[in-house]
Amino acid sequence: LISKLPNVGTTIFTTMSQLAADAGALNLSQGFPDFDGPDALREALARHVMVGHNQYAPMTGLPALREQVAVKIAGLYGRKVDAATEVTITPGATQAIFCAIQAVIRPGDEVIVFDPCYDSYEPSVQLAGGVCIHQQLSLPDFHIDWQSLADAITPRTRMIVLNTPHNPSGALIDADDLERLAALIRERDIYLLSDEVYEHLVFDGREHASVLRHDELYQRAFVVSSFGKTYHVTGWKTGYVVAPPALSSELRKVHQYVSFTGVTPLQWALADFMAEHPEHISELPAFYQAKRDLFCDLLAGSRFSFTRATGTYFQLADYSAIRPDLDDVAMAEWLTREHGVASIPISVFYQSPPADLRLVRFCFAKREETLRQAAERLCAI
Amino acid sequence: LISKLPNVGTTIFTTMSQLAADAGALNLSQGFPDFDGPDALREALARHVMVGHNQYAPMTGLPALREQVAVKIAGLYGRKVDAATEVTITPGATQAIFCAIQAVIRPGDEVIVFDPCYDSYEPSVQLAGGVCIHQQLSLPDFHIDWQSLADAITPRTRMIVLNTPHNPSGALIDADDLERLAALIRERDIYLLSDEVYEHLVFDGREHASVLRHDELYQRAFVVSSFGKTYHVTGWKTGYVVAPPALSSELRKVHQYVSFTGVTPLQWALADFMAEHPEHISELPAFYQAKRDLFCDLLAGSRFSFTRATGTYFQLADYSAIRPDLDDVAMAEWLTREHGVASIPISVFYQSPPADLRLVRFCFAKREETLRQAAERLCAI
Ligand SMILES: CSCCC(=O)C(=O)O
Ligand SMILES: CSCCC(=O)C(=O)O
Repeated sequence: LISKLPNVGTTIFTTMSQLAADAGALNLSQGFPDFDGPDALREALARHVMVGHNQYAPMTGLPALREQVAVKIAGLYGRKVDAATEVTITPGATQAIFCAIQAVIRPGDEVIVFDPCYDSYEPSVQLAGGVCIHQQLSLPDFHIDWQSLADAITPRTRMIVLNTPHNPSGALIDADDLERLAALIRERDIYLLSDEVYEHLVFDGREHASVLRHDELYQRAFVVSSFGKTYHVTGWKTGYVVAPPALSSELRKVHQYVSFTGVTPLQWALADFMAEHPEHISELPAFYQAKRDLFCDLLAGSRFSFTRATGTYFQLADYSAIRPDLDDVAMAEWLTREHGVASIPISVFYQSPPADLRLVRFCFAKREETLRQAAERLCAI
Repeated sequence: LISKLPNVGTTIFTTMSQLAADAGALNLSQGFPDFDGPDALREALARHVMVGHNQYAPMTGLPALREQVAVKIAGLYGRKVDAATEVTITPGATQAIFCAIQAVIRPGDEVIVFDPCYDSYEPSVQLAGGVCIHQQLSLPDFHIDWQSLADAITPRTRMIVLNTPHNPSGALIDADDLERLAALIRERDIYLLSDEVYEHLVFDGREHASVLRHDELYQRAFVVSSFGKTYHVTGWKTGYVVAPPALSSELRKVHQYVSFTGVTPLQWALADFMAEHPEHISELPAFYQAKRDLFCDLLAGSRFSFTRATGTYFQLADYSAIRPDLDDVAMAEWLTREHGVASIPISVFYQSPPADLRLVRFCFAKREETLRQAAERLCAI
């Protein structure tokens, strides 16, 4: 069998989590918490499983959960979306992204992505027969280069993939960026895939510039988020897509045959928890900002240099002062093996990484003691 | 947005389940039980969620669950598969099917399917750029017409989709069929997708002719099954694919970007339950055969005619003696609205349904009282 994805190897997340386990290192690589989801959420799941919510959910997702998503969006972003026709629950945000791409992209279509970017975008586009056009975010702030983006648009451009808050950098776009984007794609046949899985993880009083805030952009957008990230249960693999009815309808045709529907009792539990604990999401920024600050305050005593992440639960750190001789993949391995802290090298999120990139990504979605121990090890280098 | 799947409407499963709910009918349409999964399985899930198995599972699935699948396969089919390289857990069997197709099929490739067939095969092939070549199973027994199959194979044929036990007919293939199939594809570049989600639902002492029993076929096969069907928890949306290492490797590349991984606590619960209750699968044939027989014994008093299903939890019934004027879609609607029993018309599983088809499908994965009530209503017509 000749591979349809010849360039795909083991993802860096699997590789680094495995290396962390083998080396007995603290795992600050793959993005997941080392603490558990809320008791009330887990208890709700246990309850629904025991009362018998174990058969197929409706194809588009449990109505009560779609309704909670609509309520949240109205509250946060001031948009009224119709839970029946604009919200679709998917088995994870990765699958939401995959389905949105499959719904739109045909052979020969171009999809613009901003490097460094999450590693699922390109294979998803390839499987649809499309081509990724890689734009580099400008360093050191990981901002969009608007002129370069304008130059990259061709008649074959069919989609732009946004990601804010941005993984791996933690950078945010703002309302002005949304305006610029709207001006760029106005009167063109270009759709937007907005990966907003870290929508609630925005710090220092900043605001998440969701595409849901922007009328014009939303009309051609698939906005993706993740219950797993938001509720500290990445293993629940449940996400959602919000898109206008015509786009949702096409997305659902794909979703119907990719998975048919998500897991029923998880959806009941999430719907209950969202209804009963709306404070969870309003408390999230402070919750993760405290972790960021703890980690960064401690890391200030090391030879790493960094500016604090403005969003996500990832902190980039420049190691030029420590091992400028190592590329970031070698550095991440060295840190794991020799110093007991696993991270993610960010060059793997580039098509052509800048030669002088000396950055690794640490996940700070960890308990205080984990962060203290990791920082202690990193400061000792 | 111009649809990539212009022929896809709402699936018959959604339509009929909705009509059943609206009409207050007994829902014998969509294939799911109206009873719950085993207490021990649900308790295991509650336990794992509470002890904290809520973060990402490994991409290929929880090792303990893959191991249980390998143990089961060794016991049932006498094949030793390597859990590490040949078993992949997926978010549902539908997704397993989707990923296997994506891993192999390229634009222009032909995929042979046997009508009537499950409605996800064709859109999955279309999204890969392939074309489905529809072969009709010969009536009334829903057997493969080997000459016609041989004639349908072209140099572009890349995959054949088998489904045994067969949905919707309940027909089985046997060891001779596997031999014939092996002879047909020998020395051709053709892969096999074997949808065996009803593998444990085989009646009257018959044997399931799993592709896993056949060395030569297995070398080019993706064998798909479903924990949801087997453990009465269709809403858990967890399935698996068994394939030789080279094929598994390609399948996993797709799976990695379609969903990355399945739901963690469900996998723990299933692994525990399989280890502790191996009798569950050996008791399944008798369990469902009793339901089939109850339903069929009662239905014998009606004007429907039928031969008992040899597998699956579906029973076809011919209604020519009742409303020969109605096609099966109209009949299924009439039965639901006027007589309070929802079924599935089988013409929707055909590209070109035979004109004189007068069959509807009843799901007998139902409690005794549901089956008695349904049969009573059907006998009163
Ligand atoms: C699906 S594993 C990747 C988790 C994640 O989002 C990350 O670490 O960037
Ligand atoms: C995914 S809904 C379909 C359930 C099923 O397998 C059937 O009813 O045939």
